[in-house]
Order: sequence, then structure tokens, then C-alpha cells
Amino acid sequence: MRRTKIADILQNGVVGEDFLVKGWVRTRRGSKQVNFIALNDGSVIHNLQIVADVEIFGEELLRRATTGASLAVTGKLNASQGAGQNVEMVAEKLEVIGDCDPNEYPLQPKKHSLEFLREKAHLRFRTSTFSAVARVRHAMIFAVHNFFTSKGFVNIHTPIITASDAEGAGEMFQVTTLDLDNVPKTEAGKIDFSRDFFGKATNLTVSGQLEGELAAMGLADIYTFGPTFRAENSNTTRHLAEFWMIEPEMAFYDLNDNMDLAEEFLKYLIKYALEHCPDDLAFLSSRLMEEEQNKKAEDRSMELLEKLRFVLEDDFVRLTYSEAIEILKNSKPNKKGQFKYTIEGYGADLQSEHERFLVEKHFKKPVVLTDYPKEIKAFYMKLNEDNKTVRAMDVLFPQIGEIIGGSQREENHEKLLARMAEMDIPSEEMWWYLDTRKFGAVPHSGFGLGFERLMLFVTGMGNIRDVIAFPRTPKNAEF
Amino acid sequence: MRRTKIADILQNGVVGEDFLVKGWVRTRRGSKQVNFIALNDGSVIHNLQIVADVEIFGEELLRRATTGASLAVTGKLNASQGAGQNVEMVAEKLEVIGDCDPNEYPLQPKKHSLEFLREKAHLRFRTSTFSAVARVRHAMIFAVHNFFTSKGFVNIHTPIITASDAEGAGEMFQVTTLDLDNVPKTEAGKIDFSRDFFGKATNLTVSGQLEGELAAMGLADIYTFGPTFRAENSNTTRHLAEFWMIEPEMAFYDLNDNMDLAEEFLKYLIKYALEHCPDDLAFLSSRLMEEEQNKKAEDRSMELLEKLRFVLEDDFVRLTYSEAIEILKNSKPNKKGQFKYTIEGYGADLQSEHERFLVEKHFKKPVVLTDYPKEIKAFYMKLNEDNKTVRAMDVLFPQIGEIIGGSQREENHEKLLARMAEMDIPSEEMWWYLDTRKFGAVPHSGFGLGFERLMLFVTGMGNIRDVIAFPRTPKNAEF
Repeated sequence: MRRTKIADILQNGVVGEDFLVKGWVRTRRGSKQVNFIALNDGSVIHNLQIVADVEIFGEELLRRATTGASLAVTGKLNASQGAGQNVEMVAEKLEVIGDCDPNEYPLQPKKHSLEFLREKAHLRFRTSTFSAVARVRHAMIFAVHNFFTSKGFVNIHTPIITASDAEGAGEMFQVTTLDLDNVPKTEAGKIDFSRDFFGKATNLTVSGQLEGELAAMGLADIYTFGPTFRAENSNTTRHLAEFWMIEPEMAFYDLNDNMDLAEEFLKYLIKYALEHCPDDLAFLSSRLMEEEQNKKAEDRSMELLEKLRFVLEDDFVRLTYSEAIEILKNSKPNKKGQFKYTIEGYGADLQSEHERFLVEKHFKKPVVLTDYPKEIKAFYMKLNEDNKTVRAMDVLFPQIGEIIGGSQREENHEKLLARMAEMDIPSEEMWWYLDTRKFGAVPHSGFGLGFERLMLFVTGMGNIRDVIAFPRTPKNAEF
Repeated sequence: MRRTKIADILQNGVVGEDFLVKGWVRTRRGSKQVNFIALNDGSVIHNLQIVADVEIFGEELLRRATTGASLAVTGKLNASQGAGQNVEMVAEKLEVIGDCDPNEYPLQPKKHSLEFLREKAHLRFRTSTFSAVARVRHAMIFAVHNFFTSKGFVNIHTPIITASDAEGAGEMFQVTTLDLDNVPKTEAGKIDFSRDFFGKATNLTVSGQLEGELAAMGLADIYTFGPTFRAENSNTTRHLAEFWMIEPEMAFYDLNDNMDLAEEFLKYLIKYALEHCPDDLAFLSSRLMEEEQNKKAEDRSMELLEKLRFVLEDDFVRLTYSEAIEILKNSKPNKKGQFKYTIEGYGADLQSEHERFLVEKHFKKPVVLTDYPKEIKAFYMKLNEDNKTVRAMDVLFPQIGEIIGGSQREENHEKLLARMAEMDIPSEEMWWYLDTRKFGAVPHSGFGLGFERLMLFVTGMGNIRDVIAFPRTPKNAEF
């Protein structure tokens, strides 16, 4: 008999039919007559309850069905008498595939802290929380590709190893094959990168945007979806040294087109999660509520599904940075000194507290801010006619603040050169980027979505280390 | 009026209707009365022919519609009189968005060598060949996700920066934030990695398999799709320093299940390409035929579509390595000394020439070889009962030889430890990998598909640098 996945049995299994299931034991309980084994195979959040007659299988065999052990069970699907499930399987054959010593196995059936599970990241896929997160993550990956494919976008794999620095900022990881024990030097005493693998100094990419723009200048609509890196020593719940980014780039799009696409994209992703992951989201929602019990009422976050619908059901409010500054300056928390950073006026860099005030208290809707001061944004953003602001946009969400950052790009060769000079970006090394402003330049726009930020929002998890399989953070590259 | 993509116009455009198109000029020709402009917007291999009346637009404007210039054109769709297209657009409004100086623009309308275009990788998206390759690449990316999603697999983003070496071989890129000019040393004179970002020596991953196995031990069916790296100084048409790999890993799969999945997967991908990219493949096929004209008849490759159908229509032949050795040993080319490496018998490492002989001459079908000598395969492959061979499988294709390599994994803790000791794999650092053999171990299998190898096969391109946007090779990290 071929193995059937538990997800299929729970969805399509007909009572009275025989199946073969394989999975790992979550729990076992029972009496001298009968054992109930909760079996999980990772295909769905729910376990399949196996009913095993002690007389048939013997105590010795059933005692080996400890938490973590792997089993193959053949049996008949029955309507369940017990609470918590509609069907169960009455075992006819039961084999222990792999034992699991309860004295050694760290994931015994009790509540484990997320911190503890991070140290057991190789095993945490077997927990309800992390298998749910992994399945939702997969659904979001697929939804990203689905969305862009349906619109005729081309996915481009931009380079991971690069000799350029897209943002003109951000600390980077060096990539080298030089002997660190004995770094070769030139006669002038400098590091001899001519002897390195690529013949020059190279780093891990911080963004695929610049290369994405090149592709958009021929294919029109492209997106990247790949790993990006920051060597910042930030040990927070929001930062990873290695994280995944989605960066669409569109020829012939102005800032309004860009905002339309970003809003449509985010709503598509969240709708997809609600439609395709109802069981996992229900579990994650109850997990979050339980966690929030320990917080004061005013610190508690929105219920997860309510938060997702909040994004789905409202038009995003669009306003300029300058308008937002006026609102914030005159807001109660600003006047009462309740913001950690008081807003004095134009020029201030908005903090998460300000972004969240706009979204959660003032508008009670997702917000898109545009036209930021050029001083606080990147060199490639299109300068407005006021010569003061750039055609940037930040999409702000409840709780997490900025979820998307983007802009119309400066396509004017002279203006771009001037901005690069102002901001000390070496233009000689970027000849290829500048070329696209010389040869049939077109208005174009794009944005970046940090995939783990999205995952935090969709799953309600509080720590970014818990929405990627094997997080990379300062002093941590385990597994 | 909203812009319509040329792909949509050619597929759904109704003659007599008005459209707005935007794109880049491929060519312009014409008389004193009328100009014909071939416009391309990257959405499809075909250009849209724009018919522009010189009297309406004036010679001065039309002269600016040089190759590479970007245009916005509004006009009416007409049935075309000319050869080569069914419809054309009669321009009513024509605007040059961005000029393109013919004295500077390198992609003038003439035949360019692939080598030349590699140096202009930032512009080559605008050529027919590379836009076709980019679109086929996208189709293959989407097909990969589609295939696995439909089977309930979970895509796992395994780490790029890692402290482990999956294959126990392969030269790796070091990742570091240490000051290369002044590498810190311990008192004992060794490199002080405690002061590096991760507190230890780290590298770029050569494979996501080991981490993928961890995920499969909880989620059952997973796949990775991410960049992998080899710091090998190989300047060939088959090697990249940075390339993308797809690595599924399945709990409860034995080697036969693994072969079934690999065959189904490859056939799905090729069927998808034939169904979704007929125009791009037709172009790439004729490109290949033109290129092959210059070769001697016996060196010419199969016609592209014929080669794709060759895979689709035949069951893959499955045989053991030992059986293949017998066939090769007794083959004409072996006896006549026509192989560069003569096959003496069991133990020989098969070269591309042998793999291709089996596929193209002997069986005339794709071939799967299994049960290789353990000495020439990796430590994690399951040992057969003969204690000599391992449950490995290589899928061999015409022209490129090995396209997939995989195996059933050794799930027995003692046997795995013994193999690691034999092959000098440090087991202490791999405690997490070994743990999955202690806690509910199950038979499991997986394989790896080099995505650019697949792309070479599907597109008929001859050099791996031409199937990825910005290739990374020794001494080359441009763009």
C-alpha cells in the first residue's frame, strides 16, 4: 500500500477505508486496553489519532512509540468518538521505523520557550509552531511568484557576490579566497586583490535593485527574490544578517503606478495566506493570544486575523512626508512628550513609533508616505521639481511600521550624476548603471519587500529569528 | 490611455482598436513617405511593427527613433501587408522617451558574438537571444515551484552563510568582517575568529542538502531553491562560481521513489517549457541551428525541440553502475580506444564521454545509473548490503551528461558515523545532522538539480555564462 499524507486523509479520507500513514509521534496516552497515539507527518497542523489495541500490538512495542519516534501505521479510518478530531485510525499494522530515547530527546511534550527551540533549530520543524510557520512561509513564496507571473514579470536571479554597494551604505560581508593567515600585499603595502578569486574586492549583496534595473531596461517588468546581507551588529528582534528580499522593478512606472502595485501585491499576499493557510493561521492566532495574555491590556497587539483583514479591507492612505510631519507635530503624543523622539518639523527621520501612530491611531489604515527629503533617502531616487524632496514611498503597516520601501528612480543622466557626486558615490565603478540613463532611458520605479518582515506580520511571530529556518545573527551561524 | 504590453496585443489585440505601447526600438527602415519601426518591450520575442507617416511626424523626430531609443506610440492596430507579422500599428502619436546616440550605443543592429554581449551584460536583455533566455528561465523557476507546491512540498530557504561543508569537498569562499589589512591573531598566533562577525570561520554554502534533510525530518517533503557557490578555478563553459540549485529532500522515500520523482520532475519542467514558451524556444532552436551550420555534421547537436521531446517521450532507462561499466567496457569506442579515458572496469569514475555514449548511442534514451562504488560518492549516501556500493543515482541526459545527482541517505546512526570517520568528516561539528539519526530516524532520499545545467539543456545555449544574468567566474564579478 502507498503512504497517504495526513493532510489528504483529513481532507479527503473516507471513513471505513484503509490507509498507510507514516510520521512522528507527538504524544501517546492510554490505558491497559488501548493506546492513543497522536501522529504528525508535517503535511498539516493537525495530528492523526491512532487507536492501538494493546492486546494486538503488545505493551513492549507500544512503549517504543515515544514522543519523536517514527511510525508506519496501516489501519482503517473511523469516525472519532473523542473531542478534537472528526476521524481517527484504528491500527491494523504498526511498525516503529526509528526509536527516540526519551532521556535524550529534547522536545518532550511540554511547553518549550521559543529561545530554547532556537537552540534546537534542527528539530523545531517537528513542533506545531514552526511547522505552521514553515508552511505559511512556503505559501507566501509561492504567492509571490504567482502574483508576478500572472502579470508577466520575469524573475531575475541577481548576483549574490558583487563588487558594488547598491545603497552606498550598509556594512557588508567580504567574500574572499585570500589566505587570511597571510594576506598577500602589493609592493605599496596594500592588500593584493588581484590575487583574489575575482581579481578585486568583493562582498555579499545588500540589494539586487541596481542589477534589477538593468534587466527592467530590456524586459520591462522584472522582480528579484533572493538572499541579501547586512553585517550590522544589531542584536534585535527585527534584524538578521541574512534575509530574503523581493524587489520588483518596472519600466514605464511612475510613483503612482508603483504605489498601486505595492498595495495590490500586499493585499494579494495576505488574501492568499487567509485562503490557503486557514488552519495554520488559526493555530498561530491562538498561539499569539496565549502569549499576549501575559501583557498589559494596552500593550497587547491586534488579534492576528483581525490584523490581516485590517490590511485587506482598507484602501491604503497616501500622503506626503511633509503632510505626515504636520500631523505628527500637532499630535497629542508629540505635544505631551510621549514620543521617544519628538517631531520638531520637516527633516526628521521617522521612527517606528511615529509610523505606528499614523497607522494605528490617526488613520486606522495602512499608510503610504511619499516625497521624503532627499537627504534621508538613497541617491537613485528621482528628484522632485522642488529640488528638495525625492519620489520615495514607504508603506507602513500596523505594529511593524515600514514593510515596503521604494521609489521612482532618477532616469535623468545629468541629475543622477549630480546626486552621486553630492553623496560621494563613485560613478566610475557604476558605468553600467549610468549607461541605462544614456541609452533609451525611461521613467521607472520599484520597491523592496523584506520577506521576513512580511512573515512577522502574517504569522504574528514576535522575533525574526523564528520566521526563517536557520537565522544568521551576530555570533550565530549554527547549523 | 493605459499602456498595453506587446505580448497582449499580439495575442489578443483586435484589428481596428487603439493602443498605447512603450518599448525600445530594435530597427527603423523606410522611405521618404513612411517609416517602419520594430518596437520591442521585452514581453515577447516578437517586435511590433510601427508604421509612421513621415509627413505627420516629420523627419527630425523619426530620425531620433534610433536603435535603442525608447518610444511611446499610440495608434491603431492594422492587419499587416508585409511579411513576418500578422498585425502592425499605424502611429497616431509618437513620442521619443529617451534618445540613444548611435555613435555610443554598442548594440547596433548587426550580429554580435555572445562573447561581446557578455561584456555588455547590462544591455543584453535587449537582444532577442537573452530576452528569450530570461523568459524561459522565469518559466522554469515558476514550473519548479508549481511542481513541488502541487505535491505538498515546502520550500525551505537554507542558509547561504554557513560554518559547515556539506560535501566534505569543494573549495569554498570565505565570508568575513575581519580587517584583511590587519587580521587579528590569538596569542597562539592563529586567526582570531572569535572577533569575526559570527565568532567563527564561515563560508558560502556549497549545498543546502544537509539543512534540507533536517527540515524533511519534520515536514516530510521539502525543497530548496537557492544560490550555491564553488571557489574552483574552472574557466569552462560548464562552471560558475555562483549558481542556483534545486534540492528536494523527502522523508520515507527510498531510491526507487527518488528516481520516480526525478524523472517526473524533469519531464514536467520540459513539458512546461514546450507548452509555455513555444515562441522563445522556436527562436532559440533556429539560433542553435544557425550556429551549428559552422560545425561538421558529426559534431552537430540534436535539434532543440527534438532533444526536448527525446526526454519527454521516453521512459528513462535504469541500471546499476556495474551494469553500465560492463556495457562501456565492451563497447566499440572503448575497444577502439576512442574514449579519452578507457574504461578498465569497476571503480572507474565515469566521464561525460561515457555518460553521453550510454544515452546517445547505446540506449538512445535518458539513463539513470544507480549503486555507485562508495569510494567515488559522498559520505551521506546509504551503504548497500554489499558494503561496496551506495544507493546513489545520477540522471544522464543527451549532450550535457549528468543533470541530476542524488541518493537515498544513510539513516543508520552507527553506519553514518563509521562512514564519516572513514572519510575524515568531523562529526563533532555535525552534531545536529547526526541528531536526526538518533531521534525517530526514517529512510529518506533527495537529489540536486543544477538550475543552469537545466537551462543549458532547455535553451540549447552552449555556454553557462549565457543562461544567468550576471555570471560569476574566476576574475569576473562585473556588474
